Amino acid sequence: MPRPTRHAPERGDARTRLLEAARDVIRTRGFAATTVDDLCRAAGVTKGAFFHHFRSKDALGVAVAGFWAETTGALFEGAPHHAPADPLDRVLAYVDFRRALVSDDIPAFTCLAGTLAQEVHATAPDIRDAAAAGIFGHARTLEPDIAAAMEAHGIVPDGWSAASLARHCQAVVQGGFILAKAANDPDLAREAIDHLGRYVRHLFGVAPAASREDPK
Amino acid sequence: MPRPTRHAPERGDARTRLLEAARDVIRTRGFAATTVDDLCRAAGVTKGAFFHHFRSKDALGVAVAGFWAETTGALFEGAPHHAPADPLDRVLAYVDFRRALVSDDIPAFTCLAGTLAQEVHATAPDIRDAAAAGIFGHARTLEPDIAAAMEAHGIVPDGWSAASLARHCQAVVQGGFILAKAANDPDLAREAIDHLGRYVRHLFGVAPAASREDPK
Repeated sequence: MPRPTRHAPERGDARTRLLEAARDVIRTRGFAATTVDDLCRAAGVTKGAFFHHFRSKDALGVAVAGFWAETTGALFEGAPHHAPADPLDRVLAYVDFRRALVSDDIPAFTCLAGTLAQEVHATAPDIRDAAAAGIFGHARTLEPDIAAAMEAHGIVPDGWSAASLARHCQAVVQGGFILAKAANDPDLAREAIDHLGRYVRHLFGVAPAASREDPK
Repeated sequence: MPRPTRHAPERGDARTRLLEAARDVIRTRGFAATTVDDLCRAAGVTKGAFFHHFRSKDALGVAVAGFWAETTGALFEGAPHHAPADPLDRVLAYVDFRRALVSDDIPAFTCLAGTLAQEVHATAPDIRDAAAAGIFGHARTLEPDIAAAMEAHGIVPDGWSAASLARHCQAVVQGGFILAKAANDPDLAREAIDHLGRYVRHLFGVAPAASREDPK
């Protein structure tokens, strides 16, 4: 599979144009409501070209989940949250980076993998599994920093682990996206991510202890 | 609109049977993939009956979001988390109740409103708004207990509020549902809700402080 970036010369490649169109159209309209004709129109390719590259719409669904994992994987790999020397600072910088990705354009910042999983979980296991590979593969990239932060801060977790906290970061982000979509308000995604950052600080004992005023 | 409960004698009512069928079929297959024929078949009613009660599939979408808000509203109103005398105990009992609702049957415990919002956010504003009314209306029912708990425990929040924590409870639950669907594993919804309970305990200062061992 060719791996052009968005602005690479190979962008003209019909397969890549179809994957980019699928990424954007599905995040706007959902998978079932998106037709092969919609995708061909958005990508500017013929139906013949579509079926040359994908044997079915479901095959495109699996491929676009993989394309999503690959392109967002590259985005996170090159992101600034890896810079801090302290591993907890890297974890918190990851949360900040997730917040910074939230823009005013809901289809542009929400998650294709979460959208696909929500919609096809019971009806298209191949697409669901490809979406899951993206979500949980990304979660696993956070585990080393969380584990290093636990060790550096001498944290003995009460029933959680680096793996479960890494997954929880994804759960909160996905849930924030749902609320942002429901209210048509990106601030609700930011609010959820702010709660996540506060939770991480509490788990590592770097949040202010619950401050009390006039206790009863 | 008639308000039979699931086992009430009025269950034979075609409109209610269609709403119950829509609730269950949409949580399994999504909204766009569900046809009017699917709904008539699942409800055991004719297409004529469908269009007698709903002028379109989108009108059914709005109605089923309202039906969901109404029936889940009754469920939460009668739930055991209102019993504790201490308001923080009520908030934590709400989190426990959300966890107890997670079963082995993913379409049966996941949220119709979140599913609809994810799918139609950009294409069917009426359905999206009806789903949002359910999600945020439910969140608002938590605010008095959270506010009372903040007052009883003398909490001065660092950038959060009763309203934002009430919404965050919904974000975490919705996100846990996405992860459970992606992995086809209800335990991931339980894991997210466990993190939520731990977060609430930290915010109110009733979690163990981060325990440390061999700090570096």
